[in-house]
Amino acid sequence: MPKKLRLGIVGGGGDSLIGILHRVASQINDNYEIVAAVFTPDFENNMGFAQEIDMPLNRVYRDFDIFVNEEMQLPESERIEVCAVLTPNFLHFPMALKLLENGFHVICEKPMTTSLQEAKALQEAHKEAGTVFALTHTYTGYPMVRQMREMIKAGALGKIHKVDAAYYQGWVNTVIHHEAKRTAVWRLDPEKAGISSCMGDIGVHAFNMLEYTTGLKVESILSDFNYLYKENTMDIDGTVLVRMGEYVKGVIRASQVATGEENGLTIAIYGDKAAFKWEQENPNFLYMLSDTEPTQVYKPGHAYNSVLSLDGTKLPAGHPEGIFDAMANIYKGAARAIRGQIYNEGEFPTMLDGVRGMNFIEATVESHKKGNVWVNLE
Amino acid sequence: MPKKLRLGIVGGGGDSLIGILHRVASQINDNYEIVAAVFTPDFENNMGFAQEIDMPLNRVYRDFDIFVNEEMQLPESERIEVCAVLTPNFLHFPMALKLLENGFHVICEKPMTTSLQEAKALQEAHKEAGTVFALTHTYTGYPMVRQMREMIKAGALGKIHKVDAAYYQGWVNTVIHHEAKRTAVWRLDPEKAGISSCMGDIGVHAFNMLEYTTGLKVESILSDFNYLYKENTMDIDGTVLVRMGEYVKGVIRASQVATGEENGLTIAIYGDKAAFKWEQENPNFLYMLSDTEPTQVYKPGHAYNSVLSLDGTKLPAGHPEGIFDAMANIYKGAARAIRGQIYNEGEFPTMLDGVRGMNFIEATVESHKKGNVWVNLE
Amino acid sequence: MPKKLRLGIVGGGGDSLIGILHRVASQINDNYEIVAAVFTPDFENNMGFAQEIDMPLNRVYRDFDIFVNEEMQLPESERIEVCAVLTPNFLHFPMALKLLENGFHVICEKPMTTSLQEAKALQEAHKEAGTVFALTHTYTGYPMVRQMREMIKAGALGKIHKVDAAYYQGWVNTVIHHEAKRTAVWRLDPEKAGISSCMGDIGVHAFNMLEYTTGLKVESILSDFNYLYKENTMDIDGTVLVRMGEYVKGVIRASQVATGEENGLTIAIYGDKAAFKWEQENPNFLYMLSDTEPTQVYKPGHAYNSVLSLDGTKLPAGHPEGIFDAMANIYKGAARAIRGQIYNEGEFPTMLDGVRGMNFIEATVESHKKGNVWVNLE
Amino acid sequence: MPKKLRLGIVGGGGDSLIGILHRVASQINDNYEIVAAVFTPDFENNMGFAQEIDMPLNRVYRDFDIFVNEEMQLPESERIEVCAVLTPNFLHFPMALKLLENGFHVICEKPMTTSLQEAKALQEAHKEAGTVFALTHTYTGYPMVRQMREMIKAGALGKIHKVDAAYYQGWVNTVIHHEAKRTAVWRLDPEKAGISSCMGDIGVHAFNMLEYTTGLKVESILSDFNYLYKENTMDIDGTVLVRMGEYVKGVIRASQVATGEENGLTIAIYGDKAAFKWEQENPNFLYMLSDTEPTQVYKPGHAYNSVLSLDGTKLPAGHPEGIFDAMANIYKGAARAIRGQIYNEGEFPTMLDGVRGMNFIEATVESHKKGNVWVNLE
Repeated sequence: MPKKLRLGIVGGGGDSLIGILHRVASQINDNYEIVAAVFTPDFENNMGFAQEIDMPLNRVYRDFDIFVNEEMQLPESERIEVCAVLTPNFLHFPMALKLLENGFHVICEKPMTTSLQEAKALQEAHKEAGTVFALTHTYTGYPMVRQMREMIKAGALGKIHKVDAAYYQGWVNTVIHHEAKRTAVWRLDPEKAGISSCMGDIGVHAFNMLEYTTGLKVESILSDFNYLYKENTMDIDGTVLVRMGEYVKGVIRASQVATGEENGLTIAIYGDKAAFKWEQENPNFLYMLSDTEPTQVYKPGHAYNSVLSLDGTKLPAGHPEGIFDAMANIYKGAARAIRGQIYNEGEFPTMLDGVRGMNFIEATVESHKKGNVWVNLE
Repeated sequence: MPKKLRLGIVGGGGDSLIGILHRVASQINDNYEIVAAVFTPDFENNMGFAQEIDMPLNRVYRDFDIFVNEEMQLPESERIEVCAVLTPNFLHFPMALKLLENGFHVICEKPMTTSLQEAKALQEAHKEAGTVFALTHTYTGYPMVRQMREMIKAGALGKIHKVDAAYYQGWVNTVIHHEAKRTAVWRLDPEKAGISSCMGDIGVHAFNMLEYTTGLKVESILSDFNYLYKENTMDIDGTVLVRMGEYVKGVIRASQVATGEENGLTIAIYGDKAAFKWEQENPNFLYMLSDTEPTQVYKPGHAYNSVLSLDGTKLPAGHPEGIFDAMANIYKGAARAIRGQIYNEGEFPTMLDGVRGMNFIEATVESHKKGNVWVNLE
Repeated sequence: MPKKLRLGIVGGGGDSLIGILHRVASQINDNYEIVAAVFTPDFENNMGFAQEIDMPLNRVYRDFDIFVNEEMQLPESERIEVCAVLTPNFLHFPMALKLLENGFHVICEKPMTTSLQEAKALQEAHKEAGTVFALTHTYTGYPMVRQMREMIKAGALGKIHKVDAAYYQGWVNTVIHHEAKRTAVWRLDPEKAGISSCMGDIGVHAFNMLEYTTGLKVESILSDFNYLYKENTMDIDGTVLVRMGEYVKGVIRASQVATGEENGLTIAIYGDKAAFKWEQENPNFLYMLSDTEPTQVYKPGHAYNSVLSLDGTKLPAGHPEGIFDAMANIYKGAARAIRGQIYNEGEFPTMLDGVRGMNFIEATVESHKKGNVWVNLE
Repeated sequence: MPKKLRLGIVGGGGDSLIGILHRVASQINDNYEIVAAVFTPDFENNMGFAQEIDMPLNRVYRDFDIFVNEEMQLPESERIEVCAVLTPNFLHFPMALKLLENGFHVICEKPMTTSLQEAKALQEAHKEAGTVFALTHTYTGYPMVRQMREMIKAGALGKIHKVDAAYYQGWVNTVIHHEAKRTAVWRLDPEKAGISSCMGDIGVHAFNMLEYTTGLKVESILSDFNYLYKENTMDIDGTVLVRMGEYVKGVIRASQVATGEENGLTIAIYGDKAAFKWEQENPNFLYMLSDTEPTQVYKPGHAYNSVLSLDGTKLPAGHPEGIFDAMANIYKGAARAIRGQIYNEGEFPTMLDGVRGMNFIEATVESHKKGNVWVNLE
């Protein structure tokens, strides 16, 4: 009989979308109780937000350091067991590091860090800590993504020879075409937003999805970015040639200026027997293609699905579950791991996904800057 | 600064799908705390389940009567304020009645009662009580359904002249074609399952959707059922001609033997200016048709949507929300009503929807049994 | 080595859409040569049109009677063998009759006649003549419709228990809502347009599609029309309950005021094993549903299709063929029949389809006028 | 009053798919009469096929040289005016050249030649001849492709900054995975099939579609091919980075081993105002996306379409026209040009498209072979 895990949250206060996503997801399967938090840097806002969501105020802390220190003072039976890190990207690394060093489990938003170097340092700390580290590549939590993974692992596609993943959004159009905005917005300022916008924010999801579903690793990449305007120095669009083997090739396409696209993450995996196609905006439909048989449409909740897929569905077929449910599945898997229960390694992305993601992001920037040359991933 | 509402739950324990749906939905917007419950009739299971979801056990009661009595003993500031009724259909009426009589707010699963007579009695009790009563016609909680309602109200379709709603499922095929099963299953036994299977369980959703979106009332109906086998006496398939005005006609189609259909609730509303089409299994796409302009595809989360629609979306466009989110919207609206805040009457279905639903169900049975004649709704 | 069949055409001149459809379809498989015609009543227009399409002018006739008389004067080896009847509906009967009486094969547009009585008279004449009579229910010529028929015949759906066909258009909206127009337009004048608009023009296609694909016959119907305005007396919208057996029920929905719908012919057939769904506006996708297996999407041109389906596809899978190709398939089948070759009876609709169609149309009018009562088909 | 144009055909006999496509397309709008042909190299087959399609035999010739010579002997009023070249790729150049040199109009299948050098030579000959040369990039004939072109020209998308075109097929899977087959099949033998399989056969369509719809030119490309097996030396899969301006970038993706894909030509064009998306397998649906407005779905046959689009539709909206109709539109445009009538330059692809296509194909091979470097187009 499981007690709920004591969950702390850093970041995600106010109107934060990532905040509500994690908060809801953590509650969906009755595994976590939110007991401590620093939602925002401003203490008044912090307390106000805690009241708004009607959370006990005594463990809403003034800042992250106090949060960790105070929690460490508590008896182990009261202290948080796991902490969700939802702060701005540059804070992921120091916070996750400190949490790991203090023996906590961590559920961390992506990108895991702001550089591959940081990622590796965190990986070291994680090895030391021996706790659970889950990276919230949310989309891997969809039942039909899990179904792809399991069927590919079982050989349904045969030998994979081609991959094609895309993540197209259009929202940067609303700032990039206005001269004043494109030089002023922090998101397009490398000093504030890091080395990459498009690849770091969304391209890396497509990359992760390829490795997650195929079980293969991207070996090398060649990228080409589009900045749209001379004075813009952040990648807001790019195409990346990828190699996952000598004869396993493909492409990752990512854009934040793909006008009218909302959250267009799509993936296609082609093997010598069959293929899979899936789109994030219709997440409950998975298409399996063959050269000789009718296309098959897999949907969640059917007995024909794999255990890993079915574990991620709460209602019978035809009742659409969405992105909150996908995230909830990652929390569910993490809970199993934290409790030392048996779990499938596909239940949540890990530290390794984080390190590889940073490797990918840096490689795409390097490739583009060096004139669209091939760059190996480690 | 709102305190969470103290929510009681009756029914929905164990693997109950409706249980997890309500439990999750109640938590999504930080409005409710589950403080008391009777999940199942068996007390051991009841306690076991409460432990499984790690809920305080002191207010998990032995049965419904004890539940009400004990809660009434508590000071008003601790006592539940609102109770979700998730028990089998025949218990909705007596339980909701008692809850209303004791001054509680009620969130009730549909069908509201097992007869129109009961529905009216409950309506009377509700008038007396003056509390909030929300009926969980879940699908009205989808942002795009709300968008239909608001745009129709604003005249986007002009004068409505034709409606077409369907709710097609196939699951009864798994029992009806086996002679032994079709006479043994409680769901197909009128003594146990009530006067209607298909209309009572799903047809009524289609009916409610028509009235919810158009703001019009169904005036009369003519129905024809298909029992499939001589020895089956429960409607498992039926088509209902409907009139919502002298020149406003249409059809409600419902089936539990529409092979391969999962949860196929669809609606089409045609006016003299434009039309809407929507499907529950792709809930985030709303199609607006015109005879002279390109079809428009509305999606949730865009600024072009109505306030009522946007209130039901938590994430930016392109992040699919599903049925848990739809139900959460109904809980959100009910919370506003319970707290005496201003709300749009489209935020949750009410007692009136329940009464009309029972009226519809009984009318379809009467029409069929009398030889497919027109029956007026009250 | 087949010589092209000598084809005559009556009607279909000028901008006639049915004209270009038949003319093109007749040429697609190299089976017919257009050698004689009366395209329009006005001789000057007639000749002008013949010149426009660059057809030999010597057998372009002044009117239908001259057409038949002159052709009969020609030696049998030059005389037309088959004639396409594309004139306004009320002329189908007298013209087809005379053509049959003179020993010609006939390819006739639908509705075959303007009454069941005429239809039966034509049926008698056809028996006498012993020639080929093909009725152009164009939509039965689509490869995926043929695939449905063949798979149903082979038992793929098991025992059929439910059918649902619709034909929704919106074009009547452009006239019906203007008081002046709705009383003046010939199409809405029963004296000029016959007893039915919606059922006669499109409902009958849905009816034919049900019988074509299932191999079952509609036994009885109950219909309800919507006239939209008091002064309109033509059915422009209607729903028809149908019975194809004691426990085989369903619905035909037809409308010409389904705003924004273009040519929305759809069909769904549910059996105890599986189901088919198909839409005319995406004619190259056929969905096979099951309660337990993934949905399968059949497409034309694949080896997994039936002989009848493959006979109707000219290019490999993925090259969309459309309505001209569907009509061409009907012409192709008729050519086989005319030449005395072996053909599948699903290759073209026949006299029997015409008689049943008129029976259906008259029954729907009778049912509605008598107050929505059941009317048996013969 | 137009006389039909006298059309000759070389190639396309027997079961040739390209043969029936051109033959049917040439007849659809009553513009051409097939009067002379060499369908196949074998004279007996040639005559047999001519009889099969019931064509006059006196101008069915023994070979291409005799064809040209004999036709030149005929009086100009009887001689063919235009010739369709449907022979294997390596014959396009010599045949088209000779036809142009003898003053004929030419309708030529793609790829226009087997090298850029040949293409330029043909271009020279064409300048000399002054006749009409149409290249059958069939897909540009679809009404919705034309609609894209016209709306883009009119500024509907604003400034274009991103393009993404794909042409995915899977049929090579049926040979490439069998060692015996992949070394024996002529299609994978560069000596027989030319320098490129995937880019030459289908990639060039995607390339042409980009230039056709945007009005922009591809300036440079970088390509990466996948051969799948060491002993295969033909490109059967490749991704091509493209630049159509300093800040106009994108990708062309092409594959013949995209398992289960049939004829998946898709295109997406993103501008600073709006975007278009279109798929060849659903050719009658054109999606216009915006960051702030609902997606709009354009369909053929509506008054809101451009003149160029409407010129390519024969029936009202909702009557699907397909690839035969697209090709027929190209023939229709060519007929206008041949007759000296006014036409829109979007009505058919020209010599320039052919030269650019060969330039593209050679550039992709060069880029890949040189190690994925940028190659400029001329």
